[in-house]
Amino acid sequence: MKNRKILKQIRQIFINHGLSKLHANITSKFIIDAELVGAHSHGLSRVKMYCERIKKRVINPKPKIKIKKISQSISHIDANNSIGFVSADIGIKTAIKSAQKTGFGLVAIKNSGHYGLSSFYAEQAVKKNLMVWCFTNAPPAIAPHGAKKTLFGTNPICFGTPSGNKVPFILDTSVSMINRGKIRVAAKQGKKIPLGVALDKNGNPTNDAKKALKGVQLPIAGFRGSGLAWMVDIMSGVLTGANHAGKVKDPFDDFSGPQNVGHLFMVLKPSLFVGKNYISRIKENIKIIKRLPKIKGVKEIMYPGQGIRSRYKKNIKKGIVIPKNILEDLNKLNAIK
Amino acid sequence: MKNRKILKQIRQIFINHGLSKLHANITSKFIIDAELVGAHSHGLSRVKMYCERIKKRVINPKPKIKIKKISQSISHIDANNSIGFVSADIGIKTAIKSAQKTGFGLVAIKNSGHYGLSSFYAEQAVKKNLMVWCFTNAPPAIAPHGAKKTLFGTNPICFGTPSGNKVPFILDTSVSMINRGKIRVAAKQGKKIPLGVALDKNGNPTNDAKKALKGVQLPIAGFRGSGLAWMVDIMSGVLTGANHAGKVKDPFDDFSGPQNVGHLFMVLKPSLFVGKNYISRIKENIKIIKRLPKIKGVKEIMYPGQGIRSRYKKNIKKGIVIPKNILEDLNKLNAIK
Repeated sequence: MKNRKILKQIRQIFINHGLSKLHANITSKFIIDAELVGAHSHGLSRVKMYCERIKKRVINPKPKIKIKKISQSISHIDANNSIGFVSADIGIKTAIKSAQKTGFGLVAIKNSGHYGLSSFYAEQAVKKNLMVWCFTNAPPAIAPHGAKKTLFGTNPICFGTPSGNKVPFILDTSVSMINRGKIRVAAKQGKKIPLGVALDKNGNPTNDAKKALKGVQLPIAGFRGSGLAWMVDIMSGVLTGANHAGKVKDPFDDFSGPQNVGHLFMVLKPSLFVGKNYISRIKENIKIIKRLPKIKGVKEIMYPGQGIRSRYKKNIKKGIVIPKNILEDLNKLNAIK
Repeated sequence: MKNRKILKQIRQIFINHGLSKLHANITSKFIIDAELVGAHSHGLSRVKMYCERIKKRVINPKPKIKIKKISQSISHIDANNSIGFVSADIGIKTAIKSAQKTGFGLVAIKNSGHYGLSSFYAEQAVKKNLMVWCFTNAPPAIAPHGAKKTLFGTNPICFGTPSGNKVPFILDTSVSMINRGKIRVAAKQGKKIPLGVALDKNGNPTNDAKKALKGVQLPIAGFRGSGLAWMVDIMSGVLTGANHAGKVKDPFDDFSGPQNVGHLFMVLKPSLFVGKNYISRIKENIKIIKRLPKIKGVKEIMYPGQGIRSRYKKNIKKGIVIPKNILEDLNKLNAIK
């Protein structure tokens, strides 16, 4: 299907479910962007869930989002249980403005929801020639080191900087061996997941996606990844006033109340310390690393963000392919007026 | 030997090598603290190297450290090739003051050297009830994902927060599977290292510490760890004006000039968004995680910082044990007046 047509359709679905035109625009754009970068687990497969949450009023379709200015550089946002995309979009724009004014912007968001890919927000800052960090917590997926029960989310760490090249440097890595969404997609499509990334509910290694969803995902690098996940939970949840310590609700399974996800955005002028030289310095950094001798089979040493951009370009041309079960869901949702 | 006696001896060695009393105090304290937390690779095994670098004037014993105030919250320090401990100590104290005044402090440091453990600096902020991040780059040790040559340092990520308990929450994790210093100590003591943490110079897995020192260390979690190491290099090096992209000199092997390591410290008032509740929130967070069901053989789920504190307590009582070869080095250095 034509990408633009799908975008309009998704936008209309959200308008029909009570979102304002502006909020429906933001939401549908990020959902389509997720498809275009190949992050299907953050794309159309979530539309039905978002709509159900709106219907059950655990997502607020008409939120009163409050921005509390703490200083010229620092703001606190109460998202009033908006769909996550919307509050995160307001949050990053607020942080960008602060950084442009004072060199540094910090925005903490509470009472939000799943916001899609961190890179959506990082990219906005980088396009304004700023350096950026985005953090969010998420529903339980990873077991803390030493525990046999999940508690931390996949809690991504995202960092972006202008690269001096067309493609920005955007690292967006979960601290889980595998993205929970990828397991969910594999389960839907009946595909296997790699061994060593998850355990079943009894604590045994499994490559069965459905069993993994009931078990635990493993953090990267044992206590190191577990510590990083813990850090992200503290920064996104404890600090911001959002849920934390495993209390962020799973959006697919738990309709007992809003998710209350927390996000933390930091934005910085990269010219603060080295002035205009920053761009030549980062260009040199990337050039030197790209020129290193490569291991067998590697054509190019890629910096974070390059892979996602090349997938985006390909998919823009190819057009979005919607799996049959999701298309049926969308058609049903679209029929609701 | 009595810890206090060793401290005085190390202090005197640095005074004899031209450091001011104040700088010798800072340096010797952090070196002894490294021993006491069991980080021998960051302790007495480095004293001879520091002295040699001072003698060859690639560490400046009488640095003119310049602090440039960029805003109420942000400062840039030119360390003038001081020993790393000294500029980092000034840096964290500057960041703490800014955070106390404005809620947030950011300090970038260039022309510095190896500063020991990041947790030394994080702990200072946490003791003042502040949240803190410390970053530093380091000499080449890890191969970027796809490359067969080392370039990134072990580039630690350090995060600290008051925990509401006596023991602060301090995560201090390198993004390398193994600390380079640990390989160096193993090589000195003729011990093996685990398989899977390093490759020899031909790209083959090795458990021989000496071969690993000539080869490459592996990042945690492939491209994820490689991306995090790259992020730390950009934040500590490209942003601050320090060396980067593999140009930080190895302090043991390269006396051709100063190291020009870069550090970045961020300090934040944790009460910014949730007020005094922060302490009860973080206490609850830790309590919930500690109460999770544990995997077989695990007595307690520890938060980052607990392990290091219990080692410290034990070693304070036990006293520092100095390996013979290092004791000989120290006695020689102590004889220089």
